[in-house]
Amino acid sequence: MRKVAIIGVGAIPVGEHWGTSLRDMAVEALLNAMDDAGVDKVDSLYVGNMASGSFVEQENLGTLIADFAGLGHIPAVKIEAACASGGAAVQEGFKAVASGLDDIVAVVGVEKMTDAWPTDATRYLAYASDAEYELFNGASFVALNALVMRLYMKEFGATEEDFAHFAVNAHKNGANNPYAMFKKVIKVETALRSPYIADPLKLFDASSVCDGAAAVILAPLDKAKEFTDTPIEIAGIGRAVDTINLANRRELLRLRATIEASRRAYKMAGVEPKDIDVIEVHDAFTIMAAMALEDLGFVPKGQGAKVASEGQIAVDGDYPIQTMGGLKARGHPVGATGVYQTVEAVWQLRIDAGKNQVPDPEIALTQNIGGTGSNITVNILRRV
Amino acid sequence: MRKVAIIGVGAIPVGEHWGTSLRDMAVEALLNAMDDAGVDKVDSLYVGNMASGSFVEQENLGTLIADFAGLGHIPAVKIEAACASGGAAVQEGFKAVASGLDDIVAVVGVEKMTDAWPTDATRYLAYASDAEYELFNGASFVALNALVMRLYMKEFGATEEDFAHFAVNAHKNGANNPYAMFKKVIKVETALRSPYIADPLKLFDASSVCDGAAAVILAPLDKAKEFTDTPIEIAGIGRAVDTINLANRRELLRLRATIEASRRAYKMAGVEPKDIDVIEVHDAFTIMAAMALEDLGFVPKGQGAKVASEGQIAVDGDYPIQTMGGLKARGHPVGATGVYQTVEAVWQLRIDAGKNQVPDPEIALTQNIGGTGSNITVNILRRV
Repeated sequence: MRKVAIIGVGAIPVGEHWGTSLRDMAVEALLNAMDDAGVDKVDSLYVGNMASGSFVEQENLGTLIADFAGLGHIPAVKIEAACASGGAAVQEGFKAVASGLDDIVAVVGVEKMTDAWPTDATRYLAYASDAEYELFNGASFVALNALVMRLYMKEFGATEEDFAHFAVNAHKNGANNPYAMFKKVIKVETALRSPYIADPLKLFDASSVCDGAAAVILAPLDKAKEFTDTPIEIAGIGRAVDTINLANRRELLRLRATIEASRRAYKMAGVEPKDIDVIEVHDAFTIMAAMALEDLGFVPKGQGAKVASEGQIAVDGDYPIQTMGGLKARGHPVGATGVYQTVEAVWQLRIDAGKNQVPDPEIALTQNIGGTGSNITVNILRRV
Repeated sequence: MRKVAIIGVGAIPVGEHWGTSLRDMAVEALLNAMDDAGVDKVDSLYVGNMASGSFVEQENLGTLIADFAGLGHIPAVKIEAACASGGAAVQEGFKAVASGLDDIVAVVGVEKMTDAWPTDATRYLAYASDAEYELFNGASFVALNALVMRLYMKEFGATEEDFAHFAVNAHKNGANNPYAMFKKVIKVETALRSPYIADPLKLFDASSVCDGAAAVILAPLDKAKEFTDTPIEIAGIGRAVDTINLANRRELLRLRATIEASRRAYKMAGVEPKDIDVIEVHDAFTIMAAMALEDLGFVPKGQGAKVASEGQIAVDGDYPIQTMGGLKARGHPVGATGVYQTVEAVWQLRIDAGKNQVPDPEIALTQNIGGTGSNITVNILRRV
């Protein structure tokens, strides 16, 4: 199996892109990445996207984006794993290069959510749950995450203030990221005073509906230096599913899919949690960030929210997470998120993260969650 | 790169499955294939599906199906390439095995279309076109194919009767396939007397809205004999896109994506059109079957409809196509179709196709089209 490296990254700022269509967003991010890699053609294209059929009435995204990016008669396909579509697309692109079938592979994550009415957006997102049971009974993703958060607080004595620190950290880091949706620094009080959406989950515990696109270009590691002085190896990939329906889990406070996906990725990369210098977790809700720190093996179960309130998740802390704003402040255009995480990890490993630079990192980990922890990808990147 | 074989196949009959949910359809096909392969677990799952979000309000199909099939915490993902999703899913599963990452990989294609109102189904299918231009202006897939058919008839002197022979052949073969939706033999007159949907395209030129699921199990070729006495090698894969919008094509009567995808598949398998014994083409509309025979290299441009009317497409003819009924008679549950084609090609190569058995075939080709020829997969299977 060939080793694989990232030779170029690109993105557009996350936001509400009322005047730009999905295809134009994706093509801009893709061409930015191709420009960064110094390539004017690719062998194949993988598109990470969750629900473009519902949001903008367009399927066949592989074709659409390859066509409008002028890539010619290449193979192109869309990868869907709910909100983990982006991380999964990076992994499928990895396999195309690793197998030897393709040399230069483009991966673009894109989602345009703001064209839908807000109530419809909530419904479309719930298609990632067990629609016939959870959605049918009116459980939105906010509600499902609130159930888990409530249980976590009861079980481990965590407080709403503990969780607020995840939002504060995200907004602090997002303020220095030109691609972030929210660039405003907030205080703990700001988060605590925000309205409840589903008790105990408040507005600032949740990421927003938004639009975005990000892209990476992959190549065989042994050819990567022909394109860039700073190739970043994809050293390990892991993915795992859990029950789609939260009610069918044996335990609610442990994401088995994170544990299994990260076990595979750590093993493939030959590293352990202590070796990770930059951690991009899927903080669609603050409770998910807390549990990620635990299930990825960084802190013991029940300590995730505590280390946030102690400041250990800052860029200069022991567990630097959401270093460019995370899903909360950079934004969470669902199918694009995993690719944004990858782009940001590359910035960190290239020592190109500006004011948010983690000191001299060598290894970064990205965790991307689909559903209520039902489909999770973990990728480990390494400076070469 | 490791060689890859199919060690098991399974399906459910195509039809209108009012009483069965998408998950149950997919799980039944998948378990049939696992039973056929003699495996009770797999390393990963690929799901071919076009538009479950629109049709049944359910995304995250990789998780859903892995969960309800009891496959545990494996990696699972959905592959979308419009109506070519099934063929593309087989290819992505191929890469997982070829790369060495996974040994036993399950691929299931599934689509449940009949839960939607018929007018909505037409709209959801049109999401595979250039939705902002073609769908917005009211062009359905039937209308787009009718334009191509009209031009083909004008350019090459083909008649409506020539095209009717594709439907007659499909129904004749479907009558012997227990998994086919339509098992009724028809005459040329039946097809010719059917109503116009979009002149010159008539009811019997088109495949139907339906439900279905099919699955295959993949393994490394060198381990395949541990599971089955009749492994079928996936000897070549090819995929290519074209402009998503028909109006942007340089020529309408040549599917560049078929030409490019088949060129890659032939090269990888080391074969030529004359070596192919069984041909499963994407006859969603009869005009697409005619053009497939030409663009795959079997007959000269303009002769595709003619060889049908001369009977050369029959099971014992020079170009046996739709050998188990094709999209017209077996049915076209869009995201599942490419996997049904693969299953049927395996039946033929195992000499297990009953009354429709092509005499002693060694090599089969499947062509699966997404959009109006905008995303096409070609797979070549070989008896080992």
